[in-house]
Amino acid sequence: MFRAPVGDILFTLKSVAGLTDVMAFPAHGELSDDLVDAIIEEAGRFAAEEIAPLNEIGDRQGAVLNDGAVTTPPGWKEAYLRWREGGWNSVISEPEFGGQGLPTMLHVAAMELWNSGSMAFAIGPTLTIGAIEALEKHASPQLQETYLPKLVSGEWMGTMNLTEPQAGSDLNALKARAERAGDGTYRIFGQKIFITYGEHDFTDNIVHLVLARLPDAPAGTRGISLFLVPKFLVNEDGSLGARNDARCTGVEHKLGIHGSPTCTMSYGDEGGAVGWLIGEENRGLACMFTMMNNARLAVGIQGVGVAERAMQHAANYALERRQGRAAGDAGEGMSPIAHHPDVKRTLLTMRALTQAARAICYSNAHAIDMAGLVDDEGSRRYWSERAGLLTPIAKAFSTDIGVEVASMGVQVHGGMGYIEETGAARLLRDARIAPIYEGTNGIQAIDLVTRKLPLSGGEHIRGFLAELGEIATSARGANRAEFARMAERLENSIADLREAVEWLLAALGEGRMSEALAGATPFLRLAGLTLGGALLIKGALRSSGDSPAERLRLLAARHFADSHLPLTGGLAADVMGGADAVTDFDVSLIAS
Amino acid sequence: MFRAPVGDILFTLKSVAGLTDVMAFPAHGELSDDLVDAIIEEAGRFAAEEIAPLNEIGDRQGAVLNDGAVTTPPGWKEAYLRWREGGWNSVISEPEFGGQGLPTMLHVAAMELWNSGSMAFAIGPTLTIGAIEALEKHASPQLQETYLPKLVSGEWMGTMNLTEPQAGSDLNALKARAERAGDGTYRIFGQKIFITYGEHDFTDNIVHLVLARLPDAPAGTRGISLFLVPKFLVNEDGSLGARNDARCTGVEHKLGIHGSPTCTMSYGDEGGAVGWLIGEENRGLACMFTMMNNARLAVGIQGVGVAERAMQHAANYALERRQGRAAGDAGEGMSPIAHHPDVKRTLLTMRALTQAARAICYSNAHAIDMAGLVDDEGSRRYWSERAGLLTPIAKAFSTDIGVEVASMGVQVHGGMGYIEETGAARLLRDARIAPIYEGTNGIQAIDLVTRKLPLSGGEHIRGFLAELGEIATSARGANRAEFARMAERLENSIADLREAVEWLLAALGEGRMSEALAGATPFLRLAGLTLGGALLIKGALRSSGDSPAERLRLLAARHFADSHLPLTGGLAADVMGGADAVTDFDVSLIAS
Repeated sequence: MFRAPVGDILFTLKSVAGLTDVMAFPAHGELSDDLVDAIIEEAGRFAAEEIAPLNEIGDRQGAVLNDGAVTTPPGWKEAYLRWREGGWNSVISEPEFGGQGLPTMLHVAAMELWNSGSMAFAIGPTLTIGAIEALEKHASPQLQETYLPKLVSGEWMGTMNLTEPQAGSDLNALKARAERAGDGTYRIFGQKIFITYGEHDFTDNIVHLVLARLPDAPAGTRGISLFLVPKFLVNEDGSLGARNDARCTGVEHKLGIHGSPTCTMSYGDEGGAVGWLIGEENRGLACMFTMMNNARLAVGIQGVGVAERAMQHAANYALERRQGRAAGDAGEGMSPIAHHPDVKRTLLTMRALTQAARAICYSNAHAIDMAGLVDDEGSRRYWSERAGLLTPIAKAFSTDIGVEVASMGVQVHGGMGYIEETGAARLLRDARIAPIYEGTNGIQAIDLVTRKLPLSGGEHIRGFLAELGEIATSARGANRAEFARMAERLENSIADLREAVEWLLAALGEGRMSEALAGATPFLRLAGLTLGGALLIKGALRSSGDSPAERLRLLAARHFADSHLPLTGGLAADVMGGADAVTDFDVSLIAS
Repeated sequence: MFRAPVGDILFTLKSVAGLTDVMAFPAHGELSDDLVDAIIEEAGRFAAEEIAPLNEIGDRQGAVLNDGAVTTPPGWKEAYLRWREGGWNSVISEPEFGGQGLPTMLHVAAMELWNSGSMAFAIGPTLTIGAIEALEKHASPQLQETYLPKLVSGEWMGTMNLTEPQAGSDLNALKARAERAGDGTYRIFGQKIFITYGEHDFTDNIVHLVLARLPDAPAGTRGISLFLVPKFLVNEDGSLGARNDARCTGVEHKLGIHGSPTCTMSYGDEGGAVGWLIGEENRGLACMFTMMNNARLAVGIQGVGVAERAMQHAANYALERRQGRAAGDAGEGMSPIAHHPDVKRTLLTMRALTQAARAICYSNAHAIDMAGLVDDEGSRRYWSERAGLLTPIAKAFSTDIGVEVASMGVQVHGGMGYIEETGAARLLRDARIAPIYEGTNGIQAIDLVTRKLPLSGGEHIRGFLAELGEIATSARGANRAEFARMAERLENSIADLREAVEWLLAALGEGRMSEALAGATPFLRLAGLTLGGALLIKGALRSSGDSPAERLRLLAARHFADSHLPLTGGLAADVMGGADAVTDFDVSLIAS
């Protein structure tokens, strides 16, 4: 039984991540506190009542390909229709095309809830949102008029077609090709793999966004263009026309998210798929990157959503299952395993990691919102850089802890955790994709080190560290023993992070790229732990400890400070001292 | 393609874990260096050629229950028959009943290889060995004569029946009952769950060892007796007689190890299963514990086996798959992803963790062997305590890293890692059981803290720390820069471990049990990292660095020292400072 963590979400939005700042802008003038509460409550209700029950059957039956058509699991299409009728597809889209124009923060919070319900269900609309953003920013008015209203309403869904067998993390190797048809349209040819919701029965039409090369395009990523390729062509009056030459030829057999059809798409097998250019020729990657940054945060929040679900699942089991006798338990008979210190510790860790990742993702959304709201150039730059800095952390840290928390959930269930019917293993299988797609977490770490640390010549990350220091100072000033201890741990972690940052900046400045990259993954973890700890402490400072929810928040912050922040010293040492052995390592030695 | 790591296994056995000491005893006088090499080479050949190819079909088809009979996957029975004809079932059993009486160290090394081939295949014989040990030590001569020769040869297999739905980690709650039949036999009634290889088609007979209570037994674990319950009764002449009242009523649908039938067993539905007492009435748990300690090491080695397989699988992929251009790569075109620092780091970590866990497990086997070989009381006590100390570390650390390394293997494969056909995900699914069964890793951590640290009033662990210190001293004395650095890291980690040990001993001494238990899991990790690092450094000290294998050993030790040992400080801080928040945490707050 999933209960939407409405209270925690609202608290984190408002008291930790800065939603109130966003609401203060005239653009969101109609967004009252009550309205925010109502939106999250209703999203929570929908996620718990309508989506969460779908995940098991989705896993068991999966999406099935038959003769080119994909059938989603029983009940999924109906749930999607109710979901879009509820207006949930249009939360952040621009009002011009029917969107509600709400802040990204609210959208991310709602996405978390859909993902707690079912990652496999939630990932579909995430791709539609990405397609909408690309069209809003880069498509011609005519394309926008034809496609955006139906995408925004959710009547049609969208896809992103990047990957080819030889081109995954490296889009230079892209081979799909596009030819000019002479009438302003193009013909698209090639195979794409790993296309999420590339074919399905939710909607009448599917709008594929496809990266391909023109015949005269330069090599590499500067020769890639983005095309809109609908499953069905659209007539002038908006009705559906001919079937386009774009077909699903296979659905992958995956570890998890079985309800989400991961398609092999074949374009142009029968003469060429009709496509329309989005943006300029050879500038497709820039259009795609617009979508990708937000998609990375959307994947990060999947980690939070699945972690929340796994944590609840494990806590419920641990309160029911009785084994052994916990020290200090009064009375007779066996104790709930939730009373045993080792299980308590695991559950508290699950809770603390989930809340830390939630706060990081919402802070990332906050920065995206602010970058779009502020009107002076300096502020826009500051918030854009902040969003850029937080994106790889939000994506990688949250999805890593998503897997870790789901795995802890399996462990809390003991032998039952390994039995599929229990559901704990399913959450682990689902969670495992998130560190991989939308840029593997290794690529996020590389992005963080090589592109985000050097922003504004290193001054942005230094300012960020100073801001974290202010949280530690506030904790010092709280004049309570538990906060003094949290402050000390946080100060130590900030010092560790600062040392690693300066070491990396120096290494980058001196061209020691391999050395810097060898420590990218532990550096990202170090940054995630420090930021996560700071945000939990910030939340704890705003919690009186009077209600159970507030007591839990204090406990999670203390636990994070006592048990997770102490790891930053070792991670910093690894970043700064671990490169030699990695650099000297020749993998082919293993094969010899 | 799995290649048996024969060189690493032999090096670790002989130069790190102490096989040469064991071979020096007259009991193993016939065991020459060449014979050891030949045994491991042949085990490696069998694992790579005969077992490894079975794992995929085993996963896909699983073991199937039909009308009470379990059919193992195609090819599995034939492989089992070849395996037992090779004499692999009788490696450590006593010569009296047809065993080869070889050291546990060799048995554990061979088990590692079977598990690299297929965990689901290897776990079956592991249970047989457990049954053999219990019968060797506790059964009457008549039972031994009837059952041991066929169990030792592998003509029959054995099972362990402990768990019931309400009694998993806590055997106090056991309900299965036994009645005296008046003729010296017993009738057994009750249901057991999670019975590995409880029913199958490998052998004509299956020998179940079943825990049950006599009518007049005291409550709790002091009222549990152990019974031998064969699937088919055995006639005086050794031929098979009547079918016993012991049946498989279900096979679990699990996350992994699908080839291994995990059975629900029902005893006595038709009047009572005929059973024979093993050992004394009400002393069944003592008999079972004989098996369980060795079974824990057998599960630990599963972690090593699956990690080795996952590491090779990932390294092979990373050398073939090309994406992007690694800094410093000469020439044109994309680099193998194995050249990218972040992937190199991951592969080196996989390698180092696997080798560390291997060395820990073999050292545990060494202590078991020594305890059985030495003839003075003091030495026997020393080696028994050492085996006891190392068992929870070998079980929990190795199975934790088994999951971690398998998960890294998925990650190295990128999107392909999530596709089942790649095989990386299957290894992760298989690996995930090992931290759970034979005592969850949380229970191992509790065992380590509450039963093993206090051995000899804390003097055993203190002596162990001093021995680790000698490795650091040797590294200091090696007079090479890389060893000085390794020595420093190891000294720091030993100091961290020592501080945590003394803190825990004080907490236990003062009755602060909950506080000690709250840090049990990070303490076990701290101990595993420190011991693993020490053993890798010990191995590196004995490696000249001339061959690729020796260069790799040095690199793995340096990487472990640079990147993994620095984490011990944070873990020690967690052990000593993390209990408060855990103790204050009331899990029911989450449900409120």
